[in-house]
Amino acid sequence: MSETNFDLVVIGGGPGGYVAAIRASQLGLKTAVVEANHMGGICLNWGCIPTKALLRSAEVFTQMQHASAYGLSVQGASFDLEKIVARSRKVAGQLSGGVKSLMKKHKIQVFDAFGKLNGVGAGGVRKVALSKDGAATGEITGKNVILATGARARVFPGLEPDGNLVVTYKDAMVPKTMPKRLLVIGSGAIGIEFASFYRQLGAEVTVAEVMDRVLPVEDEEISAFAKKAFEKQGMKLLIKAQVKALKKGANSVTATIDVDGKPQDLEIDRVIVAVGIVGNVENIGIEGTKIQVDRTHVVINERCETGEPNVYAIGDIAGAPWLAHKAMHEGVMCVEGIAGKHIHAIDVTKIPGCTYCTPQVASVGLTEAKAKAAGYEVKVGRFPFIGNGKAIALGEPEGLVKTVFDAKTGELLGAHMIGAEVTELIQGYGIGRTLEATEADLMHTVFPHPTLSEMMHESVLDAYGQALHF
Amino acid sequence: MSETNFDLVVIGGGPGGYVAAIRASQLGLKTAVVEANHMGGICLNWGCIPTKALLRSAEVFTQMQHASAYGLSVQGASFDLEKIVARSRKVAGQLSGGVKSLMKKHKIQVFDAFGKLNGVGAGGVRKVALSKDGAATGEITGKNVILATGARARVFPGLEPDGNLVVTYKDAMVPKTMPKRLLVIGSGAIGIEFASFYRQLGAEVTVAEVMDRVLPVEDEEISAFAKKAFEKQGMKLLIKAQVKALKKGANSVTATIDVDGKPQDLEIDRVIVAVGIVGNVENIGIEGTKIQVDRTHVVINERCETGEPNVYAIGDIAGAPWLAHKAMHEGVMCVEGIAGKHIHAIDVTKIPGCTYCTPQVASVGLTEAKAKAAGYEVKVGRFPFIGNGKAIALGEPEGLVKTVFDAKTGELLGAHMIGAEVTELIQGYGIGRTLEATEADLMHTVFPHPTLSEMMHESVLDAYGQALHF
Repeated sequence: MSETNFDLVVIGGGPGGYVAAIRASQLGLKTAVVEANHMGGICLNWGCIPTKALLRSAEVFTQMQHASAYGLSVQGASFDLEKIVARSRKVAGQLSGGVKSLMKKHKIQVFDAFGKLNGVGAGGVRKVALSKDGAATGEITGKNVILATGARARVFPGLEPDGNLVVTYKDAMVPKTMPKRLLVIGSGAIGIEFASFYRQLGAEVTVAEVMDRVLPVEDEEISAFAKKAFEKQGMKLLIKAQVKALKKGANSVTATIDVDGKPQDLEIDRVIVAVGIVGNVENIGIEGTKIQVDRTHVVINERCETGEPNVYAIGDIAGAPWLAHKAMHEGVMCVEGIAGKHIHAIDVTKIPGCTYCTPQVASVGLTEAKAKAAGYEVKVGRFPFIGNGKAIALGEPEGLVKTVFDAKTGELLGAHMIGAEVTELIQGYGIGRTLEATEADLMHTVFPHPTLSEMMHESVLDAYGQALHF
Repeated sequence: MSETNFDLVVIGGGPGGYVAAIRASQLGLKTAVVEANHMGGICLNWGCIPTKALLRSAEVFTQMQHASAYGLSVQGASFDLEKIVARSRKVAGQLSGGVKSLMKKHKIQVFDAFGKLNGVGAGGVRKVALSKDGAATGEITGKNVILATGARARVFPGLEPDGNLVVTYKDAMVPKTMPKRLLVIGSGAIGIEFASFYRQLGAEVTVAEVMDRVLPVEDEEISAFAKKAFEKQGMKLLIKAQVKALKKGANSVTATIDVDGKPQDLEIDRVIVAVGIVGNVENIGIEGTKIQVDRTHVVINERCETGEPNVYAIGDIAGAPWLAHKAMHEGVMCVEGIAGKHIHAIDVTKIPGCTYCTPQVASVGLTEAKAKAAGYEVKVGRFPFIGNGKAIALGEPEGLVKTVFDAKTGELLGAHMIGAEVTELIQGYGIGRTLEATEADLMHTVFPHPTLSEMMHESVLDAYGQALHF
């Protein structure tokens, strides 16, 4: 018979949840994870990981089409959508399996159930009711409970997905056929990654963004650069564009889109809706507790504490930024706090963000506009990929590295990158942000040659009028 | 008529030289560069840059051969050696042209000549004699002179290159035909990159390394990992192997190799000799000065000063590590010292090294063995690519990230990586080394998900028993 009383019960087995459980186990806490769907959560199963697998296939396909630029030739190159999707699912399955093994290795008990806060038992322990398919399957207790139930796609009236012509990320990840004409609503990371994937495989792609630029959380120069790059690839980008209605036919959809005040109709074969997410705050027993919810997200303090004693929330359910690495970091920090260790509160300006479109986009810290709005006098540096030897040798001369410094102290406030491999480069600036690096620290760092990372150096030098290669 | 009296004369237009000139110009020094062959030096013209172009072609070719793993199919994939080489030369030409433009932009005068120290003139200025094709072409003076003439391939008796069957890096970069059977002598960065390139294009490749492991400057675990990976690709690696003789036939060579004391013969079609380099200290007017030379390298202090007043040396001519980024960093530092600015002496344990073979290798700081030999008690962390989601999604599950910490202070002493994109990742640890990062700093850094760079985090966590995903 399995144990039912735990030091920690984690409701939700996504990245934040399972990482919290692993750290708790390392710290000697008897830990359970309650997860009804799939260990690893959306991220591993229907998010970050399978999309990266899809995008990799598209990237290699694109490279094959440019073989002659590298002195290579191919007689014919084609893709098999079913196989691309199967590979993506296999990768997701492998990683989800890996998480299950980690649970075993760390002696974490996994309950295949939905978990719901269910009051307080003897000694102040938190009761968690378990259920599956609507039927109660038991109850466990935890001295502490972490809510990590994540979030789901936001649905707007008139843009409801039907799993066929109008879909969200989940269906978009397992297409049975290639749409000839695709509309993506929303140009955040998720929308743009799908736009990039389908475009690289040949679809006519239109992206409708309600804000005044694509990738609207990124620095304005990066947004502008991205827009040009996407348009060069044949993507159509509508900004200040609100999709008012989707009229479905048998095999196509007519979208009525208000573009900067002017309505226009667009006929497409499929629509991907990527207009934000909402927290999974329902059916987890929040009602009647002191846990506060603000716009579908649980309100927490810097220790991830909710309004209810010994109940914590981490990851997407606890609000922006909705990133797996933020969830995992919160998971570790939250558990270390529970275990009585000294913790460092999370600073969102030190959390990088990545978008795996082509060209890739990555950033950390304040944009130039936000730094100015926060009252900083700034120094700004830029370095283009076209000035970098490795970029040219790779055949990847499209991109930009931008850095923003506090003119008074020299502190690196933000870094904004677009181009090949920037999702792997951004960590250097992240380490710099953690260590409160100044321009002098980054200038004194020796970046290896020939690498793309040299542009990180040059961009810093440029902010101080000392760029060497431009 | 052109100017002949300068604040600074740089002899040699390689990366160290031209970067020193640019920085000098930024600091208001009237500057000249004397270069007889090609602006950008070996690095841009016959080294780092063109080899990266070759390796990129080989990488894309390899990817095409694995197309089916990505759900793609390709018919008739082939390469055209002439086109691959032409692309590489074009990339080199583009960058060399770029350096010429930079010289113009910064108003640096370039003399198409060999430069030679030629005594001291009025006011203590250094005279530099110019010549081309053996004939004197003039004289210029500099208040300061930087020697940046670089280095060339070492030649051992019996292994002399002939430009046909037995070649050095330069000829190896512009092959007219693919050798069926290739012997590479030396498994340092240059040797292994060529071995990787030719192997990927189908040659039978044997590498002979005199030391007891391949890539002998790298951490021993990385060497061992690399050896296995290369062997899996079908490369033959002979360690403790000394090539005693090369007997040339009409179109082939018989190498007599002493392998761990046992002689063996090997018949090959071509030999690439990559057994180290020697400094270009001849014919630059060192004789009769106080400039000291130690084993073909000019002796300098931490300000790059030689024994002769106002004469400096930077880059390969000034000794190991023979890396373009070390040369460039010395160039900037040397010139800032000349201009009276406060300078930071270079610490070689903060200079990363990269090898662009497949899988890539990159490192910074002390290996585990060197750290122990230096008296440190160490904590060592490891994380394998097979445990990383992005690596699996990319189809690149082969690699390892190893970190070495001072057990007492937590200082990051060294980082050693093998696998996809590690040459772009290593800069993060480099920034960490500059900022004297401890394990706690790196643990508190949020690395974006899903990236290969998460392994940098996990390796640190592992050194302290806190790895999350293994």
